[in-house]
Amino acid sequence: MSKQKIGVIGMAVMGRNLAWNIESRGYAVSIFNRSKEKTDEVMAASEGKKLVPTYTLEDFVDSLEKPRRILLMVQAGKGTDAVIEQLRPLLDKGDILIDGGNTYYRDTVRRGEELAADGLHFIGTGVSGGEEGALKGPSIMPGGPRDAYDLVAPILTEIAAKAPDGAPCVTYIGPGGAGHYVKMVHNGIEYGDMQLIAESYAVLKHVVGLSNEELAEVYREWNEGELDSFLIEITSKIFRRKDERTGKMLVDMIVDRAAQKGTGKWTSQSALDLGVPLTLITESVFARVLSSMKEERVAASKQLAGPARESFSGDRKAFVESVRRALYMSKIISYAQGFAQLRAASDENGWDLQYGEIARIFRAGCIIRARFLQKITDAYQHDAGLRNLLLDPYFRDVAQKYQAALREVVAEAVRVGVPVPGFSAAIAYYDSYRAETLPANLIQAQRDFFGAHTFERVDDKGSFHAEWAE
Amino acid sequence: MSKQKIGVIGMAVMGRNLAWNIESRGYAVSIFNRSKEKTDEVMAASEGKKLVPTYTLEDFVDSLEKPRRILLMVQAGKGTDAVIEQLRPLLDKGDILIDGGNTYYRDTVRRGEELAADGLHFIGTGVSGGEEGALKGPSIMPGGPRDAYDLVAPILTEIAAKAPDGAPCVTYIGPGGAGHYVKMVHNGIEYGDMQLIAESYAVLKHVVGLSNEELAEVYREWNEGELDSFLIEITSKIFRRKDERTGKMLVDMIVDRAAQKGTGKWTSQSALDLGVPLTLITESVFARVLSSMKEERVAASKQLAGPARESFSGDRKAFVESVRRALYMSKIISYAQGFAQLRAASDENGWDLQYGEIARIFRAGCIIRARFLQKITDAYQHDAGLRNLLLDPYFRDVAQKYQAALREVVAEAVRVGVPVPGFSAAIAYYDSYRAETLPANLIQAQRDFFGAHTFERVDDKGSFHAEWAE
Repeated sequence: MSKQKIGVIGMAVMGRNLAWNIESRGYAVSIFNRSKEKTDEVMAASEGKKLVPTYTLEDFVDSLEKPRRILLMVQAGKGTDAVIEQLRPLLDKGDILIDGGNTYYRDTVRRGEELAADGLHFIGTGVSGGEEGALKGPSIMPGGPRDAYDLVAPILTEIAAKAPDGAPCVTYIGPGGAGHYVKMVHNGIEYGDMQLIAESYAVLKHVVGLSNEELAEVYREWNEGELDSFLIEITSKIFRRKDERTGKMLVDMIVDRAAQKGTGKWTSQSALDLGVPLTLITESVFARVLSSMKEERVAASKQLAGPARESFSGDRKAFVESVRRALYMSKIISYAQGFAQLRAASDENGWDLQYGEIARIFRAGCIIRARFLQKITDAYQHDAGLRNLLLDPYFRDVAQKYQAALREVVAEAVRVGVPVPGFSAAIAYYDSYRAETLPANLIQAQRDFFGAHTFERVDDKGSFHAEWAE
Repeated sequence: MSKQKIGVIGMAVMGRNLAWNIESRGYAVSIFNRSKEKTDEVMAASEGKKLVPTYTLEDFVDSLEKPRRILLMVQAGKGTDAVIEQLRPLLDKGDILIDGGNTYYRDTVRRGEELAADGLHFIGTGVSGGEEGALKGPSIMPGGPRDAYDLVAPILTEIAAKAPDGAPCVTYIGPGGAGHYVKMVHNGIEYGDMQLIAESYAVLKHVVGLSNEELAEVYREWNEGELDSFLIEITSKIFRRKDERTGKMLVDMIVDRAAQKGTGKWTSQSALDLGVPLTLITESVFARVLSSMKEERVAASKQLAGPARESFSGDRKAFVESVRRALYMSKIISYAQGFAQLRAASDENGWDLQYGEIARIFRAGCIIRARFLQKITDAYQHDAGLRNLLLDPYFRDVAQKYQAALREVVAEAVRVGVPVPGFSAAIAYYDSYRAETLPANLIQAQRDFFGAHTFERVDDKGSFHAEWAE
């Protein structure tokens, strides 16, 4: 019996779609799932496809060419540890395990070290693109030993999404947990993008009074310009989608309680550890939490006063354009924060991340794919040592032109009581980052006053303490 | 030789001041420090005081009455583990170790369990009040086994600060890491308080154009009203303090780079884990980080455009009052978030925290001591099950009256380019928390569109998925 070049463990939606994607490039693929039923279900849906079902891990391992290439698409955390524990005695030196789950990057570092002791290669890779991306071409962010990556690079390159210029959306990210770290920040950025779009929706709906139909048209138009992106595109489509049950628009039938799976939270926690001001994504994580407190909000809405709501008296068209500018500028600030975090993590871990390459592989396949990512790639190509995206000439010029609109939208939303935590965080970060002086001199004075924590002087080097009490 | 009822290990400023505090209540106190020099230095400064120096841990332990009461005031983390490791073989069943450092609460849980195996009691206690509080009376937040607490309660009660009504600022917080957790959140709240005051300073200085002299007077006045607190009091004094070296005001000679020691960061990370929207304190932590990026900010200030600065044209006195209201309302929101976190942590860990008692012991001794804490105690006395401080009648009424001012200050600061991340987070939280509907329905639609993550319907129970693509 001929053996397969690659196998996939875990036949949930991401695993099966990746197996089909690999198969569609001409490979026969061994598959395995803990429960036989799921394997059979996938086989039943795979008529004419070169999938090879196996029903024990021993058979699965035996069905693969050496060095074996095994893609794990199982539940992150304990699920991954469990299957690795079972696989380990069955494998031979040089075999390659690829974890494609949303794994916490420190787990990837640990597993890589444990498996290396057995001579096994471990690659932790981000895979973004949801169901459809997995099937047709995701964005792939592999991390681990470079030589192991080279052994799987041909397959990963074939199954990856292709950007508009034809380049595959995969690149070697770096050693250890670098791949899963980048995927984590990608997801955090996704939280930020979605929160900002949600805020633009709230402002357009509650301040300007746009209908769903008008919203669909606004986002469709925006998608033709510099905001061109997958998330804006589907937002436009969402506002056109009727609910089959009631005949109303489906978006209005959906409960406003946003769920999350933890990668956004991890991103914020890592930013806090690294000392990187990741304000916008963190507000986006907290905004999802607040949205999930639905019963508490409904109760509070009956008790806590807001401002008197007046109908919008300004120029609607001009204000819609201000919202578009506010959204684009806030998005730039969110990415500036996210890429600053990547830089800090790269420095901390010695990953030598290539920021321009990372933006390049986000251009297609993944949820945050957008025309503007090319601008990030260009920025790092122009200056590989760029400290902050806002300092790149293109982004700096956008900020100069659009900051007034962002200020206008935040001020108006705050005035009428529409919450805009993401937009607010964006302008606060912009104004803080460009501030030659901040009022932190007072904080240092307070700390020295009550705790003798000392302060620096503007006119001398060293640490100083004053006797503040009179 | 008679033995002492209590000893203190660690003669840095907090340790020596606590030793003197205990001594001043009529106790002889054994002291020990890793380096002999520090012990001798403390003895030299302790003429006439009943401090008993020891120079080995063996002598220290021998000098104490059983059950021994040992207060550890050493470096949190490895320093604490090291001294515990050395002490452990010297102690007897029933002895009590009290860790008064800024210890991470999970470390306290671990140490408590390890020491319990030897029959030793371990109390992890928050101690707030800085140098002066340690000496004259700090706010004390002890956690650990209740029976062990009872053995040290008399001493802790004697050395604690006394509130205006005479009540000592100490209470049993709860088992395990509860004491250090409450101290951690206390410190997070302190970050929030300081950031909000710093923002009020920036707005008064840059928007209204107040001089240091005028600022001193404004904070002095504020300190006579509902903002009456230690931090406002010292802020007023700071603006009156001359720099001896230059004759200028000292606050203007201090570099605007705020330092931090990690407890604010831990508070935010824990909030993320618990799923509590702790936006204001988290923005305060990030604001310190941004302040510390001084060189990068100075460079960015030359490149990134701000709005044209016009001189303030409104009613100065009225605007100063708006800033006062914005500060008080934001402070209320920060405490609402912090106490919501305490509730979530209490539920998660089974600590049965008494929120009103916690606010009560913050009323004196500690850095965040303030008149308004009595209002929090009152609120929980009125309704022990209060979900959120904003729903208490007193705070609800303040919010109703002051929200317009907070909106005005945020809008004006954003318009003129003065960063107000804390004020902005406050109003965004207020408007989110009182929002019957948020735009998270769109986020759920997007998640279902690209990842089949399903959504809830407003008119039916269960999870639903739609085929969104046309």
